[in-house]
Amino acid sequence: MASPELRKDVVTGRWVVFSTARSKRPSDFKSKSPSGSGNSNSQNCPFCVGNEHLCAPQIFRVPPDPSSEWKIRVIENLYPALDRNLRQRDAQGEESPEVLAGFGFHDVVIEGPAHGVRLSDQSPREVGDVLIAFRTRIKELAAVEEIKYVQVFKNHGASAGASLSHPHCQMIALPIVPPNVSTRLDSMKDHFRQTRQCALCEAPSNKLVINESTHFVSFVPFAATYPFEIWITPRIHSSHFHEIDEDKAADLGSLLKLMLQKISVQLEDPPFNFMIQTTPLRATTSELPYAHWFLQIVPQLSVVGGFELGSGCYINPIFPEDAAELLREVNASVQ
Amino acid sequence: MASPELRKDVVTGRWVVFSTARSKRPSDFKSKSPSGSGNSNSQNCPFCVGNEHLCAPQIFRVPPDPSSEWKIRVIENLYPALDRNLRQRDAQGEESPEVLAGFGFHDVVIEGPAHGVRLSDQSPREVGDVLIAFRTRIKELAAVEEIKYVQVFKNHGASAGASLSHPHCQMIALPIVPPNVSTRLDSMKDHFRQTRQCALCEAPSNKLVINESTHFVSFVPFAATYPFEIWITPRIHSSHFHEIDEDKAADLGSLLKLMLQKISVQLEDPPFNFMIQTTPLRATTSELPYAHWFLQIVPQLSVVGGFELGSGCYINPIFPEDAAELLREVNASVQ
Repeated sequence: MASPELRKDVVTGRWVVFSTARSKRPSDFKSKSPSGSGNSNSQNCPFCVGNEHLCAPQIFRVPPDPSSEWKIRVIENLYPALDRNLRQRDAQGEESPEVLAGFGFHDVVIEGPAHGVRLSDQSPREVGDVLIAFRTRIKELAAVEEIKYVQVFKNHGASAGASLSHPHCQMIALPIVPPNVSTRLDSMKDHFRQTRQCALCEAPSNKLVINESTHFVSFVPFAATYPFEIWITPRIHSSHFHEIDEDKAADLGSLLKLMLQKISVQLEDPPFNFMIQTTPLRATTSELPYAHWFLQIVPQLSVVGGFELGSGCYINPIFPEDAAELLREVNASVQ
Repeated sequence: MASPELRKDVVTGRWVVFSTARSKRPSDFKSKSPSGSGNSNSQNCPFCVGNEHLCAPQIFRVPPDPSSEWKIRVIENLYPALDRNLRQRDAQGEESPEVLAGFGFHDVVIEGPAHGVRLSDQSPREVGDVLIAFRTRIKELAAVEEIKYVQVFKNHGASAGASLSHPHCQMIALPIVPPNVSTRLDSMKDHFRQTRQCALCEAPSNKLVINESTHFVSFVPFAATYPFEIWITPRIHSSHFHEIDEDKAADLGSLLKLMLQKISVQLEDPPFNFMIQTTPLRATTSELPYAHWFLQIVPQLSVVGGFELGSGCYINPIFPEDAAELLREVNASVQ
C-alpha cells in the first residue's frame, strides 16, 4: 500500500490528501448508487418532445426552423436560483459591499428530444452541437453588462443533484466572479509568474493522460480533488470556452463522449457532474496569458464529511496515476 | 416570496446565493434521510465498552485511572488518512513545493461508552468533558513541530460521512494550513484592516441570534453557506479553541447540546456535521487580533451539484433570519 501523500494542484491551488488506507483495490471502485437508465416517468417529463407547454419560456432551439423537430432546446429554468428581471438599480436599501440583488440568469439546455438518450449515446457531432448551444447562449449572456461569469454544469443522477432525469445541462449567469474561479486564476497567475508558462499549456505527464484527440487531451489532474476526476483541456491556449469553433466542438464532443462511456463502464454507471471551468467574461488582458479553460468531470463516489466541510481539504482514496491507468485501459470506443 | 439575494460573509469571504424559488415554506424543511437512532449493531461495535481490543491503540482515556470505567476514549483511527510515522525527512525523492509526505495524525474521540447515548443526551458538563478532551489532544499535537493545524469534526449519520454509529468525533492534524482556514483568515484580516474590529467580536444582529449562554452566542451567519447552518462563538475574543477552560467548556457544552436538540426537533433528526474552526497552531502575532475561533454546525439537508462543485458558490434555499427565527422558537431546553 502506498504511503499517504499531500499534493497541491497548481491550477486550483488546492491541497489534497491522497490516502489509500481505507480503500479497496483501485479496480474495485464502483458507484454505490448507479444513476439508473433515466427512462422513468417520460410521460410527465416536461423536457420530452410534446411537453414543451410544461416548461418555462424557450430562449432558442436547434434547428431554429419551427417546422422541423427540435434537436436541442435552451429554455429558462422554471425554478431559477437568480432572477433575470431584478436589476441592481431596482434593489433599494441594500447598498452594502456584502449584499447584491439576486440578478442573473438560470437556463436549461435540453440535450435532445428523447428521454432515454444520454449525451454519451449521441454522436460526437451531436455532442458538439450541445457544446455549440452553450457557446451561443454564453455569447448572448456576455452582452449583459452586469454578468461577470457563466457557470455551465451538468448534474446526472439524483445524488449528483439532478431533479429531472431527461438529459439536460444548466447554465447560471452570475453578477460576481465565483470563489473557485478567483482562486484558480490567482493560482495560475502565481505559476505563470514563476515559470512564464500557462499551467494548462504544459502537457500533463504521460502517467496522467487518459486519451487524446486532435485538439484536446483528457487526463486525471496531478492533485485531483475527487476520485476519478477528469479534466479535458484544449491543447492550444484558449482562455474562454466560448472561443470554440464547430470543428473543435465536434472533436471535444468525441472525447467527452468517450470519457462518459469510460466512467460508466469502469465505475458502473455512477452519478456524475461535469462543469466548464472558464474565464470571467470581462477578463483583463493581463489574465489572458495564464487563463486556460477546461472541462471537469466528477463522478460522485464519495460522501463529503466534516473534515472536508471544515478544512476545504479533500481526502482522495486513489492516486491520480492509478485512476488514469484504469481509465486508459477501459474498453470503450466512440463509433 | 422574497427576491433572491447574494450575500458575502466577512468571515468566510464567500458569496452565497439565497433563493427560495424552489423551496417549501421555511418550516417545511426536514431531513430526507434521518440519521437513525444509532442503536444498530452495538454488539460488534468497536467503540462500545468491552470491545476496546477491536480498536487501534488508545492515546488517553477519561478518567485516566484504568480501574474505573472509562467515560471518554481518545484513540488512533484504524484507517488513518495520514501516517503518524511518516516524517517529512523520510520521504525521499519528493522534493517539490507541490508534494508533501502524508505525515499527520488522525484520531478518534469516543464520546462515551454507551452506543445509544448521543452527545445531545449527555449533560452539559459531560459535553464539556468531550470538548476538554479535544483541548488536551490539540495541546499534545501542538508539540509536534510539523503540525500546522488540527481539524476537529463530527460526522453524524451515514450521509454526513459517518461509517460507525457509536457517537464519536475525529481529529486530523495536518502539516499544512488548510484552504478554508487561509481564506477565512485573509477575509477576517481585510475586515480588521477596514474596521479595526475582529469580525466575530461584533455581536450578530438580533435577527440572526438563536440562543445565548454566559460565555457564548449561537446564531445563523449572515451569509450562511448551508440551510440552518449554525455558528457558536465565544463572546470574548479568543483566537484558539484550545484556550478554553473547564467552566467555559461546560457552558459551551450546554449551548451545543441545545443546538443539537433544536436541529433534531426542527429538521427531524437530520444527519449533520460539526467542525471547530480555529486558528493555525503557529499563528503569527499579527493574526491574533482578528483570528476568533467558532464551532460550526451543518445539518445535511441538500445535495451538492455541479454548480457548487464548479463555482464554489452555494445556493441556500432559506434566508438566515428565517432559519434563526425557526430555531429560536423550537421548544427544547437543556435540563
